[in-house]
Amino acid sequence: MSERYISPLVIRRLPKYHRCLKELERSGVERVSSSVLAETLGFTASQVRQDFSCFGGFGQQGYGYNVVSLRQKIAEIIGVDKCRNAVLIGVGNLGHALLHNFDFQKCGFELRAAFDVSEALIGTSINGVEILDMGNIEEYAKETSIDVAVLTVPRQFAKETAQRLVELGVRGIWNFTNVDMNFEEKGVKVENVHFADSLKILCYEISREN
Amino acid sequence: MSERYISPLVIRRLPKYHRCLKELERSGVERVSSSVLAETLGFTASQVRQDFSCFGGFGQQGYGYNVVSLRQKIAEIIGVDKCRNAVLIGVGNLGHALLHNFDFQKCGFELRAAFDVSEALIGTSINGVEILDMGNIEEYAKETSIDVAVLTVPRQFAKETAQRLVELGVRGIWNFTNVDMNFEEKGVKVENVHFADSLKILCYEISREN
Repeated sequence: MSERYISPLVIRRLPKYHRCLKELERSGVERVSSSVLAETLGFTASQVRQDFSCFGGFGQQGYGYNVVSLRQKIAEIIGVDKCRNAVLIGVGNLGHALLHNFDFQKCGFELRAAFDVSEALIGTSINGVEILDMGNIEEYAKETSIDVAVLTVPRQFAKETAQRLVELGVRGIWNFTNVDMNFEEKGVKVENVHFADSLKILCYEISREN
Repeated sequence: MSERYISPLVIRRLPKYHRCLKELERSGVERVSSSVLAETLGFTASQVRQDFSCFGGFGQQGYGYNVVSLRQKIAEIIGVDKCRNAVLIGVGNLGHALLHNFDFQKCGFELRAAFDVSEALIGTSINGVEILDMGNIEEYAKETSIDVAVLTVPRQFAKETAQRLVELGVRGIWNFTNVDMNFEEKGVKVENVHFADSLKILCYEISREN
């Protein structure tokens, strides 16, 4: 695939297209226009066409896009059509919630194992995922390459744990700890989930209504 | 406050400024330039200045911003300086995680109560928040106005529960159910938290590295 610069704003919209197309596919819709996609997602039609043109365009002006093939192409661009290894670090409430309810496969990952320090948890399984001793993660990583680590440890352990994961050669950290971290110079991507940012946006929006 | 149109992209950056300024304040930094703010957040300095100019600008070109006063102004714009009522609906794993670990107050909300249908949970408390019977929420809403409902029910109950909350007069729904919903015509704002979108972005980023 040719490597050209694509704006982070375009990249942040890719999952939304992917989700929307999956829903259309599930509803049995076969073709969709850029204006319908735009309206569903709250974008403009020209933005949709511009975004798609970053990837060479998905064609058929005036005729709409084939939902299945567009969904497949976007899945390929995102990389969710591959299956990479993920592990989860820290099986607290949020870790439990993700283990029970989150579908890693639809995001291109197989959740191979979870790690914790609690004696009560080690050796048990949640939803088919075994909980292993965090003390053994170095050993584990020698046998199984970890592509992405899901970081759900308490805030105070965030940095040291992340550092340890970087040493193990992970390529990405899905960071729920609210502690900002940057490992760009080591080639490790960090994607932060900040619940608070989202609630503050809602706060802003309801504040405007008065 | 004068009401002018402000782009959703600017609004989505406000919580990031707020978070960054709180961290600077905690570290004892007194003044900050737009270029330092920009670098910390991965924006450009001109974007930062443009964003601030949407709110009339926070002044002092070439001299930097006063961290405390800028943080306060942004808090005021977002509305986190007020304290509004929130309730949480659905005390599963994610509900537990939020009750245990999430600081609603720093986002401008007081979490007044949680609601569930489970007999085992009703009447108990988590972190000082009482869990009430979902069957009594209509009665509850007569006495306490609910500004925002945090929706952490299972997917299959998402729509009917949201509809019920809208009837109760909530002004915003913080939606963790992965079910898209729109109540614009009723004046109710919905802020969706899609974990999958975030993991797909990480997937895209590590896919580029090959």
